[in-house]
Amino acid sequence: MKKSKSKSHFSGIDTIAYEGPRSENALSFKHYNPDEVIDGKTMSEHLRFGIAYWHAFRGTGADPFGPGTIVRPWESGKDPVSVAKVRMDAAFEFFQKIRAPFWCFHDRDIAPEGKTLAESNKYLDAIVAHAKDLQKATGVKLLWGTANLFSNPRFLAGASTNPDAHVFAYAAAQVKKAMEATLELGGENYVFWGGREGYETLLNTNLKREQDHLARFLGMAVDYAKEIGFKGQFLIEPKPKEPTKHQYDFDCATCIGFLKTYGLAKHFKFNIETNHATLAGHSFQHEIEVAAAAGMLGSIDANTGDPLLGWDTDQFNTDARELTLAMIPILNAGGLGSGGFNFDAKLRRPSIDLDDLFHAHIGGMDAYALAFKLARKIIAEGKLQKFVDDRYSSFDTGYGKDIEKGKVGFKELEKLVLTKLGEPTPKSGKQEYLENLFAQYVANGV
Amino acid sequence: MKKSKSKSHFSGIDTIAYEGPRSENALSFKHYNPDEVIDGKTMSEHLRFGIAYWHAFRGTGADPFGPGTIVRPWESGKDPVSVAKVRMDAAFEFFQKIRAPFWCFHDRDIAPEGKTLAESNKYLDAIVAHAKDLQKATGVKLLWGTANLFSNPRFLAGASTNPDAHVFAYAAAQVKKAMEATLELGGENYVFWGGREGYETLLNTNLKREQDHLARFLGMAVDYAKEIGFKGQFLIEPKPKEPTKHQYDFDCATCIGFLKTYGLAKHFKFNIETNHATLAGHSFQHEIEVAAAAGMLGSIDANTGDPLLGWDTDQFNTDARELTLAMIPILNAGGLGSGGFNFDAKLRRPSIDLDDLFHAHIGGMDAYALAFKLARKIIAEGKLQKFVDDRYSSFDTGYGKDIEKGKVGFKELEKLVLTKLGEPTPKSGKQEYLENLFAQYVANGV
Amino acid sequence: MKKSKSKSHFSGIDTIAYEGPRSENALSFKHYNPDEVIDGKTMSEHLRFGIAYWHAFRGTGADPFGPGTIVRPWESGKDPVSVAKVRMDAAFEFFQKIRAPFWCFHDRDIAPEGKTLAESNKYLDAIVAHAKDLQKATGVKLLWGTANLFSNPRFLAGASTNPDAHVFAYAAAQVKKAMEATLELGGENYVFWGGREGYETLLNTNLKREQDHLARFLGMAVDYAKEIGFKGQFLIEPKPKEPTKHQYDFDCATCIGFLKTYGLAKHFKFNIETNHATLAGHSFQHEIEVAAAAGMLGSIDANTGDPLLGWDTDQFNTDARELTLAMIPILNAGGLGSGGFNFDAKLRRPSIDLDDLFHAHIGGMDAYALAFKLARKIIAEGKLQKFVDDRYSSFDTGYGKDIEKGKVGFKELEKLVLTKLGEPTPKSGKQEYLENLFAQYVANGV
Amino acid sequence: MKKSKSKSHFSGIDTIAYEGPRSENALSFKHYNPDEVIDGKTMSEHLRFGIAYWHAFRGTGADPFGPGTIVRPWESGKDPVSVAKVRMDAAFEFFQKIRAPFWCFHDRDIAPEGKTLAESNKYLDAIVAHAKDLQKATGVKLLWGTANLFSNPRFLAGASTNPDAHVFAYAAAQVKKAMEATLELGGENYVFWGGREGYETLLNTNLKREQDHLARFLGMAVDYAKEIGFKGQFLIEPKPKEPTKHQYDFDCATCIGFLKTYGLAKHFKFNIETNHATLAGHSFQHEIEVAAAAGMLGSIDANTGDPLLGWDTDQFNTDARELTLAMIPILNAGGLGSGGFNFDAKLRRPSIDLDDLFHAHIGGMDAYALAFKLARKIIAEGKLQKFVDDRYSSFDTGYGKDIEKGKVGFKELEKLVLTKLGEPTPKSGKQEYLENLFAQYVANGV
Repeated sequence: MKKSKSKSHFSGIDTIAYEGPRSENALSFKHYNPDEVIDGKTMSEHLRFGIAYWHAFRGTGADPFGPGTIVRPWESGKDPVSVAKVRMDAAFEFFQKIRAPFWCFHDRDIAPEGKTLAESNKYLDAIVAHAKDLQKATGVKLLWGTANLFSNPRFLAGASTNPDAHVFAYAAAQVKKAMEATLELGGENYVFWGGREGYETLLNTNLKREQDHLARFLGMAVDYAKEIGFKGQFLIEPKPKEPTKHQYDFDCATCIGFLKTYGLAKHFKFNIETNHATLAGHSFQHEIEVAAAAGMLGSIDANTGDPLLGWDTDQFNTDARELTLAMIPILNAGGLGSGGFNFDAKLRRPSIDLDDLFHAHIGGMDAYALAFKLARKIIAEGKLQKFVDDRYSSFDTGYGKDIEKGKVGFKELEKLVLTKLGEPTPKSGKQEYLENLFAQYVANGV
Repeated sequence: MKKSKSKSHFSGIDTIAYEGPRSENALSFKHYNPDEVIDGKTMSEHLRFGIAYWHAFRGTGADPFGPGTIVRPWESGKDPVSVAKVRMDAAFEFFQKIRAPFWCFHDRDIAPEGKTLAESNKYLDAIVAHAKDLQKATGVKLLWGTANLFSNPRFLAGASTNPDAHVFAYAAAQVKKAMEATLELGGENYVFWGGREGYETLLNTNLKREQDHLARFLGMAVDYAKEIGFKGQFLIEPKPKEPTKHQYDFDCATCIGFLKTYGLAKHFKFNIETNHATLAGHSFQHEIEVAAAAGMLGSIDANTGDPLLGWDTDQFNTDARELTLAMIPILNAGGLGSGGFNFDAKLRRPSIDLDDLFHAHIGGMDAYALAFKLARKIIAEGKLQKFVDDRYSSFDTGYGKDIEKGKVGFKELEKLVLTKLGEPTPKSGKQEYLENLFAQYVANGV
Repeated sequence: MKKSKSKSHFSGIDTIAYEGPRSENALSFKHYNPDEVIDGKTMSEHLRFGIAYWHAFRGTGADPFGPGTIVRPWESGKDPVSVAKVRMDAAFEFFQKIRAPFWCFHDRDIAPEGKTLAESNKYLDAIVAHAKDLQKATGVKLLWGTANLFSNPRFLAGASTNPDAHVFAYAAAQVKKAMEATLELGGENYVFWGGREGYETLLNTNLKREQDHLARFLGMAVDYAKEIGFKGQFLIEPKPKEPTKHQYDFDCATCIGFLKTYGLAKHFKFNIETNHATLAGHSFQHEIEVAAAAGMLGSIDANTGDPLLGWDTDQFNTDARELTLAMIPILNAGGLGSGGFNFDAKLRRPSIDLDDLFHAHIGGMDAYALAFKLARKIIAEGKLQKFVDDRYSSFDTGYGKDIEKGKVGFKELEKLVLTKLGEPTPKSGKQEYLENLFAQYVANGV
Repeated sequence: MKKSKSKSHFSGIDTIAYEGPRSENALSFKHYNPDEVIDGKTMSEHLRFGIAYWHAFRGTGADPFGPGTIVRPWESGKDPVSVAKVRMDAAFEFFQKIRAPFWCFHDRDIAPEGKTLAESNKYLDAIVAHAKDLQKATGVKLLWGTANLFSNPRFLAGASTNPDAHVFAYAAAQVKKAMEATLELGGENYVFWGGREGYETLLNTNLKREQDHLARFLGMAVDYAKEIGFKGQFLIEPKPKEPTKHQYDFDCATCIGFLKTYGLAKHFKFNIETNHATLAGHSFQHEIEVAAAAGMLGSIDANTGDPLLGWDTDQFNTDARELTLAMIPILNAGGLGSGGFNFDAKLRRPSIDLDDLFHAHIGGMDAYALAFKLARKIIAEGKLQKFVDDRYSSFDTGYGKDIEKGKVGFKELEKLVLTKLGEPTPKSGKQEYLENLFAQYVANGV
């Protein structure tokens, strides 16, 4: 990774070094060793960590009960575009120091919104040019881009699902531009998160018509990507609710149904966020397995929620145990392809120090790196997989195989049961044994 | 409705009469007037109430912390089949007295399970014959039948998704028989509820393979229905969890995705249960609208949950306000067709008196009847619908219409915004106004 | 109520009139008839409605995913204090037009915060003087005041439970001033809501020491009230979480324990908020009954949540059924005394029209007024109460009475059971019967 | 620990040996080394593990949707008392083989219920005598006893809070006997869990009167303990709900309020269950800290729930990370005294093999043992504690100390702020740093 030449915004903090699990230096990696080569690829290449610009550089600690608490020294300047450029310099310095090979953005968090769309586009162009320079100077790449279609009051009732066609048109124009920016920056994916694509109350909503509009919108994006030669992967990021009471992209399973209904399934994969999974009533691992089973596992928004709180807390996840459970199916699915692990996670409101930003990302990266190593070990030893394979082995031969191949039906199976098979013998699922085995892997480390 | 001739099991309680909203007789209907003709059909024909055999006649009040509390006088006899017949006599007397035109069953709640499948089938045949006689004698019809594939220990790891092909075969044989029983009794639908079709832990589960098996199973059912000439509607009853940690039929949206993935969508509609909806994080109304938007609204399992409890409480719903919200989209979708409102609801454990069974169903039926009348009034007056229609009217003409018709894409819309439309003006969703309007309808009654 | 003389900020909207349940005028009361005399008091005097200044006049529709959407015409001026005065003029015009006899405030929502505490106090003095004039001019009175100890970043780790004694001192000074303002304006209560009094993580928290500090703080308030002659009721407003991960005033029961532990119970009652109750896992009615059983029912923050969402949605409650369940124990407890029903509820983010503010409050006031009438009717007829009284009548005489009086112990009771009583006969709780009875009251209206 | 002489019920399974973290023998301890001496006490003495008779020997895998799946070879015999004795022989063999120094019981899970109380008492006497012999023969001791006041239909509306005084009397007699049994067996504690002490609906409930009765009941228990010389600790086990809609012993904080209201606080401590904590909206650690702050930390019911499920799943906890967070405050509070870690956890319904019972307990014991070691290490190194101490150090001197000592009030503090202190400087809570530090301890192991 190349060095940025701009003056330091984090002068007391050097590039974070890998110092191993026992290091007493809080500002070091314990498990993430970016340059370590594993199976011919560096850990950096395996894990493809991305930094979420919005949280890391636009997050202020504001919540519904108070304004921001976090004040950054670079947040001043003669005009919004200048401030945005200095902020981006700081961001790329951070990306380098934290050893993240990728970053991600929403259009409106990198560039200020103008009074008109034309002005907003102009600002975005200026910042994208700056970002391109910084990418070139540092080697940091764009994992994905997206458009913010949820903050501005114009989107208060949705963007592509807004009952006003004018808003649909505006959103279309904004996504067009964001796709162009993503292309310009070599983004490997483009994400759709429909934070306001849903309803606040069914009393004022035509659910079917809104779903139709959402599908039209995505279809237009598919067409436009072709037109401009954007080859990146389209990703839908499911979330069940918040800010909207109900969001159409509730979870992966819901989106699979939606995309298949409208003939869009082959153009999209999923960007799965841990905290969105749990808000929908699923484990992180569940969402990964559902997406993988459909061949639609795309990328990960890496964070965690608080299981006792009912909103998106977007915390950094330091629980290597939970992450190992998630990493196993990711590796089994062949990894994330053009996706990566993007830290869509924010500092707690009281974490106002500049070094807290480093601690937070170090913790998240180390937890994923440890999980990656644990998952590789578990897969390599094969005990868990063998158990599962054996468990289903009755479908590998005989009438079990015939069932899978569609060669038998109810009548043949009834006859089999009545004449040959009789009553099945229940078999233990050995859940506690497997939990112990898994816990032993986690306890013993790598 | 014809009278059954068997001696009374509810000797102190007459057929429940409609006495109007102000009646002080707790054992009367206040809103459900079965024979009242509305738009050429009786309320009984409109509402198609069904009684759930399992709760009403096999429910004992047992819960995980204690055995049953409810003891019925008819529960004795020389052998299980005899008891089952007397119990069924009581049931049909109840169906008549409570003025329900339909009933529903699981195979194992009407007939005892034998030591072998052959013996179970024999018992079921005997009871089905008895039921057929009772149906003929009373005029009560079968709304739907189903097979219990979740209680017997053989199904501890699922039926069609069991890792053991032997269990799959057994389940196939059982559903074959249950479909035949449903056909024999003229059932208008056949229901699949996969209470154990899911996983307890992903550690021992091949999720993709289990989903494949589930699809194969449903496909076999479709084939077998054709073979035996069963023309009833197949219904899937979604539930997210309980008893199993995760169930594959999580909610309507999930099932739509699943059915479309496996090419089964045209053969199935949904049996939506209120309490299952809320366990999945949705309102009852939401699930109805999702199913209706997909043209897959089939039938209703009428009950309610406790929003502060995390399990299926299966309570009788007396909240006409909530039910009116649900009834509006049902009526807008043209009603339930071959479906009906089946009271999949149980007495609270301490409700041990025989008349509690009547109170419970009277309350539920009255609440639905009142909701039916309120919904008809709201639809007839058209205020809510007009508001919604107006809200989306920008899509009825001009570029809005072009969007819906697929005539424009991102480029055309960007140009429109940049050159003509400019910034959209946010519009109030008038949620509070609509809530007040709706509350006024409910407060003013019918 | 007297008329304010300032020019109208709501020029198209007149004072809301009572027009009865069937009125088609959305801007009229259907059930709240403020001047109607019931048992010697007007409905206005019975219900003591209050308007929450923060939501009604400082709410902007902002949420964690977007800035405010609501723009009011009066929000401009040469300096913050001038703007605050005009805003307050608008507020008092609204209080009159909506026929609310009371209002409530946090110090920082009525007056701007200055650069120093002294400056903030000066601003507050100016606004309090203005409010006093407006109260005099309009007859609107202050239900309660409070200090905002949660928005400013200085309180990011709590106010009285902040680990920094400096912040404790600052909070003490701020509450001192807010109490003085409340006294000056004749406030009938003073409220403590500890939105940041809790912890984000136990890893950095000394829970016991924080609880001690909270108790010290409340004790200082008690002392200071005595010193300045403030005779109003102190109220604690429980909330389990949000914004803080865990709040010490979790629910009424928790607060009772806390107050008794520190010898403070006699100085405090509770301000119960519907949505806080449900976030804590309780029904609104439950919290009322817990507070009433302890003789600590003080006031109500009237709103509702969405049972399917995990955060404080602060919606206007139009469900007369739920409110009637709450109103019965309130009336049975003799009403709210110096408390009232304060609409701590906010417009949905898309409800940006000025008339939405009226619709919202009309809906809430009508729902409470209808609930008040229904509860009075239910209590007057006495059926529900008689059922309950009869249910416990075995404790009114004989050994049941001896149990209550403490005259018997385990030995006497065992002897009774072994020699005389034998096995008890289970009795039905008649829940479904009671639910039907209650539903009938609601359906039949007043 | 002495050897039981009865023939083996677990013939293929030897006493579980400690084999260290890397052992590939699933039936060995990886972290729990019972005889290892740490600070002068064995791990067995430190951890005081107890086996819950009800789950381990009466659990069948039944759930609301199906009967039991688990069949044990010893469950047969000529009469219920004989079966109970053989079952208990098996239990004590298991206690020994699993190296648990304690067991716990409910009266009705060790002995069958008779037709009358006298008969039930007789059966209990017989089994208690047998248990006493087995305790003597094996050295296994009784951690606590309790009475089952929730399963029998007589308790359908509560025991001490039943509206029928007859049931109160019956419950009193039953607890009297259970206390005597606990005394006879040398039980170190006696537990009250009020599974039915609450309400299903407030419509039929006098909440205040029920709370009074509950307090009377506990008071009688206190009196009777004195009378018979039972010196064990009384423990209340809080649970918010399930089976009952609302339980009076909601959580520790609620119980503290209740006990203080009725003057009972000095006689009781808490038996905290992990899954009950989370059902109440708290972390396990939270409940421990609340109890410890009140000096009422008594014992632990060791299990875990599923944060995505809304009922008591009572699973074995293998998450050493979560347990370490809980173990730190337990050790800081000086340990559990006469309490212990009782595995109130059950096998999953499909875990039907006899060895599953061993796997389950091994996993739970190892997780607690590992957590114990990790917590000791963390406490010994003192980094976390020092951080917390420093964070509150402003209260150790000066005006901070005066605040704690009650020497200053609002006036003095206001003056301080206005004249000397000015605006406080917000300080980071360093949550992410602390989470990383904690995660490092867990990852590095012991």
